[in-house]
Amino acid sequence: MRDSGFDVADWGIGATGWDPSLLARRESVFAVSNGHLGWRGTLDEGDPCAVAGAYLNGLHERHPMPYAEDGYGYPAHGESVINAPDGKVIRLIVGDEPFDIREGSLEHHRQHLDFRAGTLERVTRWTSPAGHCVEVRSTRLASLARRAIAAVDYRVIALTGPVEVTVLSEVVADEPLPRVHPDDRVMAPLVSPLTPVGAAATAAGAALLYRTRVSGIGVAVAMEHTVTGAAEVASEADDHVARTTIVSRLDAGESVRIVKVVGHEWSDALSEAALRDRVDAAVAAAVRTGWEGLAAEQRSFLDDFWVAADVTIEGDPHLQQAVRFALFQVVQAAARAQTRSIPGKALTGAGYEGHTFWDADAFVVPVLTYLLPTAARDALRWRHATLPLARERAATLHLAGAAFPWRTISGSECSGYWPAGTIAFHINADIASAILHYVRVSGDLPFEREVAVEILVETARLWSSLGRWDGGGTFHIDGVTGPDEYSALVDDNAFTNLAAQRNLRGAADLCRRHDGPARALQVTDDEIAGWLLAAERMAVPFDPVRRVHQQYAGSTDRERWDFDGTSPQQYPLQDHFPYFDLYRKQVVKQADLVLALQFAHESFTAEQTARAFAYAEELTVRDSSLSASPQSVVAARTGHLPLALAYLREAAAIDLADVRGDVADGLHIAALAGVWTAVVSGFGGMREGADGFDFAPRLTPPLTALSYGLQVGGGHLRVEIATDAATYTLTGEAPMEVRHHGERVRLAPNRSRRLAIPPAPDPGPPPRQPRGRAPE
Amino acid sequence: MRDSGFDVADWGIGATGWDPSLLARRESVFAVSNGHLGWRGTLDEGDPCAVAGAYLNGLHERHPMPYAEDGYGYPAHGESVINAPDGKVIRLIVGDEPFDIREGSLEHHRQHLDFRAGTLERVTRWTSPAGHCVEVRSTRLASLARRAIAAVDYRVIALTGPVEVTVLSEVVADEPLPRVHPDDRVMAPLVSPLTPVGAAATAAGAALLYRTRVSGIGVAVAMEHTVTGAAEVASEADDHVARTTIVSRLDAGESVRIVKVVGHEWSDALSEAALRDRVDAAVAAAVRTGWEGLAAEQRSFLDDFWVAADVTIEGDPHLQQAVRFALFQVVQAAARAQTRSIPGKALTGAGYEGHTFWDADAFVVPVLTYLLPTAARDALRWRHATLPLARERAATLHLAGAAFPWRTISGSECSGYWPAGTIAFHINADIASAILHYVRVSGDLPFEREVAVEILVETARLWSSLGRWDGGGTFHIDGVTGPDEYSALVDDNAFTNLAAQRNLRGAADLCRRHDGPARALQVTDDEIAGWLLAAERMAVPFDPVRRVHQQYAGSTDRERWDFDGTSPQQYPLQDHFPYFDLYRKQVVKQADLVLALQFAHESFTAEQTARAFAYAEELTVRDSSLSASPQSVVAARTGHLPLALAYLREAAAIDLADVRGDVADGLHIAALAGVWTAVVSGFGGMREGADGFDFAPRLTPPLTALSYGLQVGGGHLRVEIATDAATYTLTGEAPMEVRHHGERVRLAPNRSRRLAIPPAPDPGPPPRQPRGRAPE
Repeated sequence: MRDSGFDVADWGIGATGWDPSLLARRESVFAVSNGHLGWRGTLDEGDPCAVAGAYLNGLHERHPMPYAEDGYGYPAHGESVINAPDGKVIRLIVGDEPFDIREGSLEHHRQHLDFRAGTLERVTRWTSPAGHCVEVRSTRLASLARRAIAAVDYRVIALTGPVEVTVLSEVVADEPLPRVHPDDRVMAPLVSPLTPVGAAATAAGAALLYRTRVSGIGVAVAMEHTVTGAAEVASEADDHVARTTIVSRLDAGESVRIVKVVGHEWSDALSEAALRDRVDAAVAAAVRTGWEGLAAEQRSFLDDFWVAADVTIEGDPHLQQAVRFALFQVVQAAARAQTRSIPGKALTGAGYEGHTFWDADAFVVPVLTYLLPTAARDALRWRHATLPLARERAATLHLAGAAFPWRTISGSECSGYWPAGTIAFHINADIASAILHYVRVSGDLPFEREVAVEILVETARLWSSLGRWDGGGTFHIDGVTGPDEYSALVDDNAFTNLAAQRNLRGAADLCRRHDGPARALQVTDDEIAGWLLAAERMAVPFDPVRRVHQQYAGSTDRERWDFDGTSPQQYPLQDHFPYFDLYRKQVVKQADLVLALQFAHESFTAEQTARAFAYAEELTVRDSSLSASPQSVVAARTGHLPLALAYLREAAAIDLADVRGDVADGLHIAALAGVWTAVVSGFGGMREGADGFDFAPRLTPPLTALSYGLQVGGGHLRVEIATDAATYTLTGEAPMEVRHHGERVRLAPNRSRRLAIPPAPDPGPPPRQPRGRAPE
Repeated sequence: MRDSGFDVADWGIGATGWDPSLLARRESVFAVSNGHLGWRGTLDEGDPCAVAGAYLNGLHERHPMPYAEDGYGYPAHGESVINAPDGKVIRLIVGDEPFDIREGSLEHHRQHLDFRAGTLERVTRWTSPAGHCVEVRSTRLASLARRAIAAVDYRVIALTGPVEVTVLSEVVADEPLPRVHPDDRVMAPLVSPLTPVGAAATAAGAALLYRTRVSGIGVAVAMEHTVTGAAEVASEADDHVARTTIVSRLDAGESVRIVKVVGHEWSDALSEAALRDRVDAAVAAAVRTGWEGLAAEQRSFLDDFWVAADVTIEGDPHLQQAVRFALFQVVQAAARAQTRSIPGKALTGAGYEGHTFWDADAFVVPVLTYLLPTAARDALRWRHATLPLARERAATLHLAGAAFPWRTISGSECSGYWPAGTIAFHINADIASAILHYVRVSGDLPFEREVAVEILVETARLWSSLGRWDGGGTFHIDGVTGPDEYSALVDDNAFTNLAAQRNLRGAADLCRRHDGPARALQVTDDEIAGWLLAAERMAVPFDPVRRVHQQYAGSTDRERWDFDGTSPQQYPLQDHFPYFDLYRKQVVKQADLVLALQFAHESFTAEQTARAFAYAEELTVRDSSLSASPQSVVAARTGHLPLALAYLREAAAIDLADVRGDVADGLHIAALAGVWTAVVSGFGGMREGADGFDFAPRLTPPLTALSYGLQVGGGHLRVEIATDAATYTLTGEAPMEVRHHGERVRLAPNRSRRLAIPPAPDPGPPPRQPRGRAPE
C-alpha cells in the first residue's frame, strides 16, 4: 500500500507531529461522528484549521441552481450542507498568550483515532513564547449510544508554573463554509445561513438556537461543563457564540480538567421550545452519566460491533489497519443516522455539497446489512420517507412510479447536469436491490411490509414506463446513464438492465407475499405479470463477434480512447477532455459492466465473466473512487489474485494515502465500505445468490490469513481463511446451508467446520489496463 | 396564410390603429436597419414602448456563464447584445401636455414600412386632453448608403392653434434591456453597461461617448438637427442623455419640421477621439446631403436591389407581400454589416442575446450570394476574422483545425449547453458550404485566395480529426448533434456527414487551385488525399429493412414518440418534456435529414428523396422556425405541391402572424431568408449542383405566375414561371448552360428563352405529419 503518513497499528490510526500541508486531510481522517452529528478532526483550540466542519445529518440550506441555458425538468433549487453551530471549540490561553502550535515551541503533538474506544485522542506538549510549558490532553467522542451527544475530556497540565490558564469553551455559529460552488448566486444563501432565535447561559454552560435563513430549519446546540480542579467558571451567550470561561492558576504539575458535553438537534417541524427541551434533556442526561460513563457506553457499543464485524488480515499490517479504519468510519457514518441519509462524504466534510448519491445504497447499505443491520434499515427508511418527492419527480419526467434523486439532502433532485444525473436511473434499482438484500439477510418482516413493498412497486413501475418492447419481444431501456460517467445517454446499459430485472422480479415476489400492501398500491395481477415478462425479456447486450458482453448496446463497436496518447497529467480525463469525446469513445471511468459482473454474477457464466472483465480492464481508467473495489472483487473471482490484491490496496489507500487528492473535502464513505466488500467478496470469496451463500475463499501472498463475520437472520457466521483451508463458525439457533468452492455444506449452529481450499486453477494471463492505469 | 393583422400591399407593410397587445410585435416588424445599426419600430416619442431597442452590430457586453455543475471546455463567459445609445427618441409636448397616444384622443395612427423607399413612415393625428389637435408625420431610415447614419424627418402640424409645440430630440443611454437571462449574475454586467466617457453639445446637436463597463468597447453616437419653421433651438448633453430642444408656436395649419441625423460608431480598438471624429464626420456629411438626399440614396440602393432580386408572385397577395417583406428585412440585416455577423434576430431585437448561429451561414448567406453578393462576402469575411478564436476552440477540444462557435457575438463560443451547442459541429461545414457556394456563384477570386482556402482547410482538418475510420474503411463522425435539436450526441448524422464531405472535397479543390495559400497553411498532398478519401468513404446511414435513409445511424430503430398521446398544449415539446426522452425517441424538431435532401440533393436519387421525405414527415413537429422552408422545398421537389405551398405560407407567416409567439424578441432572419429559398428552390425549381443550375419549376393553384432573379458571376438571370412554361432571361456578357426539367438548355446573353413545363408526374399520396402538426 502507498505510504499514508499515518502510523500503523491494529486498532487505531495516529499521526505524530505537525505538518500544515496535511492539516485538511487529517481533519477528515480524524473525524468523529455517530451518523447524526459529525465533527472534523480539528484541533480543540479551533486554530490552525483548514475546514472547521461541524455537521448535523440533514441540516442544509436551499439555494438557487444556475443554468447557462435552462431546460425542462431542471431542478430550480439545490441544497447544500451548512455548518452546524460548532461545539468542539475549546480555546486556551496560557499566561497571557493564546495557545497556538504555530508559535512558541511544539515539543510533541499527536492525534490518535481509537477504533475500539471510539475516541479521538490528542496530546500536545507546548512551550509558550514566554516560556510556560503545558501539556494538553483531550479525548473527543461522538456518542454512538446517545444520538445528540458529543463530548470532550479536556485537560491542561502545567509542566512549569505557576501559570494562569484560561479556557474558553465555546459553541461557535457561522463558521465559514468552504466554497462548495463557484457561483455567487449559489453561495449567497450559504454565507451566514443561520438566523439567531435564542441564546441562554447557565452557570457552566449555554445554549444557542437558530433557524436557517431560507428554508427555516430550526437547530439547537447546548453545552455543559464539569470542571475538576480549582477554577473560576462563568458562562455567557449571544447571537453568535456561547462561551464558558474557566480560569485556573496552576503550579507546575497541577492540572485542570474540563468535561464538555454538547447536545445537538435540528428539525424542520419542531418548535423552538421543543428543540431546546430536547437538547437540554440530552445534555442533562449525559452530564449525569459523566465522561467515564459516556466512554464506557462508547466502548461497549463498539465491542458489540467488532465481535460481529471485525475483519482480521495477516500478512499486511497496513491493510489490516485500513480495513478496520474503513469499518470504523462506516459505522460512524451510519450508526445513529436514524431516517437520515448517508452522504457521499458522510459527516466528515462538505464535499459534494453534503449530497447523498447511489453509492450509499449500492456500496454502504449492503455492508451495514451484514454488520449493523439497524443502520441499514434506518438508511433505507430514509429513502422511504422521501418517496413522495420521488413520485413527484417521476411525474415531472412523465414516468410512472417513483424516480429517486441522483443527488440530494432532503430527497429533492439537486443534480444540475442531467446526462450524469437525472438519467442515471439505476439509482432506483440500487435502492430496490439494497432493500431486497436487507430483507433477505435480515428477515425483517415489518420492514418488508411497511417499506419494501412500496418502494419495490414504485420503482418497478418506473422501469415499466421507462423501458420499451421491441418488435421481437425484447425489453429495452434506452437513453440512460449507467455507473460509468464516461458514457452517457446509452441504450441497454447492462448494469442498469440487470438491476432493473432484479427490481421487477423483487417487486413481483414481494407483492405476492404481501397481498394487503400490494392491493393498497392498486397492484394487479396483470401488472405483476408485466413486470415478470419485462424482467424475463430484459435486453443484456452482447457482442457476438468479440464474444463479450457490452457495457451498453454497441459499446464494443465504438472508437477506443487514445490511451497511448494520453499523458498521466491528463487524468482524471473529465478535467482535461470534453464530455462528448469521452462519451463517444470506449473509455470507462469506473466499474460498470464489472459492477454488473459483481452484483448480478448469476447472469454470467465463469467464462463470460472472465472475458467481460478482461475486456473492461483494457478500458477502465479508475477516475472514480468507486472503481477499485469492484475491480478487486471480480479480479479475485476470475482468479487474478495479485491483481485483486493491488486493487484492494488501492481501494484501502484512497483516503489514508489521499489517492484522489481530495480527502480535505471529506472521506469517500462508499469507497471505504467497498474495502470491506473487496476483502469479503474478493479474497473472502463470499457470493450471495438466489439459493444462499456461496464461498470460494482463496488467499494470495503475502496474505496468510483472513477472517470476517456476517450477521445473517438471527445468527452470525464467522469465516476464517487460511492458505489451505477455511473454517466456518455459525452462531445462533438455526442451521445453514452454504457452498464452499461449489460443494454444498451444512453448517450446524454453534459449531465450527473446517474445509480444505482446493488448488487454484490457472486463470490465464492477467488482464491488462490502459497505459499507466494499472494499480500500483 | 394566417391573418397577420397587417394591411396587404405589394411594396410595403402597414398597420393602422393602436393595439397595446401588438406593440412589441410591431416594433420588430417595423424595425429599420442597415446591418450596422438597427432601430426597432418604436414610436418616435419613446412611449408607449415594449422594447426600446437601438442596436449596433457587434456591440455587446461580456458576462459570466453560470453552471450548476461545471465541465471541461465550458465557456466561462458569455456575451450579450446591449442597447446602443438610442438616437430615435423625439419627445413631443403639445401645449403643456406630453404627446401620449394613450391619453387624449387618438384620431388616426398608422405605421408603414416601404420596401422601395426603405423607410418607416408614421402618421398620427391626436387631440390632447386640453383639446389641441396635432398631426405628427415622421419618416425614419437607417441609411443603406451611409453605414453610420440613421435619420428621421419629423413634422408636427398644428390642426388647431395657436399652440406651443416643444420637441425634445434625444440620444438616450442606458435604456433598459429585456431580461435576456434569468440569472442575476449574468444580468449584472448588462444593467447600465455603458460608462460615460464624454458628452458635448453643439447648437443643434450633441454627441455622447461611452465605454462598456467590463469589456471596454468604445461607442459614440452623435446627432444634428435641421429645423424648418420658426423655432428656438438649444442643445445640451450630460452623462446619460443628449438633448436638442426645439420650441415653436404654431397657428392652426402651421408646422415645424425637424430633420434629425444620427451617427453611430463603435470599436474595441479605436481611441475615443477617433471614434468621435468618425461619427462627427459621418453626421456632417449626412447633414450636408440633407433629408431629400438621404432618402434618394436610400431609394436608389433599393431600386438596384429590387431590379436584381425582386420576386413576383401572382395568385396570393399575402404571399407576395410576405416574400418582399422577407427580402427587405434580409437586406436590412446584411447590407452594411461589413465584417460583422448576421445575428439570429438581426438588429431587430435582443432575442437569443443577440447571438449569431449556424443559420446565418446555412440560410441567410446563400440567399445574399444570389441577391446582394457584397453582403454575403462581408458576412463570410466576418467568420474569417474570427478564425483565431475558432482555432483556439478546436485546440481546447483537442481537435485539429478550427471549430467555429455555436453561438457568439465576438467569435467566442457562448453556448452553455454542449449537447445542442459545441457538438453541433455541422456549423463548420455550413460555413464552408456557404463559402464554396459564394465562390462558385460570384467568381470572387481574391476572396477565394484570401478567405476561402484558409477556412476550408481549417474546417477540413477539423473533420479529419473529429471523424474516425472503421475496420471496413468507412469514415464515421460520431457523437455529434445535427440540425435537429430533438436528437443529440448521435453518430453519423446524415446532414453533418454530407456537409463534411462537401467541406473536405471543397478544401481539396481549393488547395489544388491555390497552391500558394495552401502551402502557407502547410497543406501536403497526403493531407489532401486523406480529405478526399474521408469524403469518398463518408458514412451515410441507410436502413436496409425500411429502405430509407436515416437521420443518424440507427435512428429508424428508435422508439417513436407518442404523438397521439401528446396534446397541442405540449408543443414545443422541449418546454414540456425532458431532453433525454426527446433524444432517445424518434421525433424531429426541425428539418435535418430533409435539410440534407435539400442541400445535398445529388447524394439521393429521386426515389430515395421521396422515401426519406415521407419518413421524416411522419416525425417532424416543426418546433423551430427553420423547418417549414426546407420542408417546402423538398415537398415541391417530390411533387407534393399543395403541401409545399402550405409550408411556404407557414414560413412566410412566421414573423408577420407571429406563429411562434416570440416576434416581440425580434424577427427570425434566417426563416425570412428561407422564405426566398422556399419560393425559388421549391416552386421556382432551382437546384444548383456540380454541373450548374437545374431548373424544374412548377406552380400549383392559386399561384398563377412567379418570377425571381439570380446574380450569377458577372451576369443576372431572371426566371419567369407561368403555369405552362418558364422564361429564362440572361443579362450579362457570357452565355450559360442550364437544365430545364432535365433538358440541357443554352441561354444566350441578353435574350429570353421560353420553355414548356412538362405535365407533373403523379407523386403518390402526400406524406403525413404527426397528429396536429400538419401545416395549416
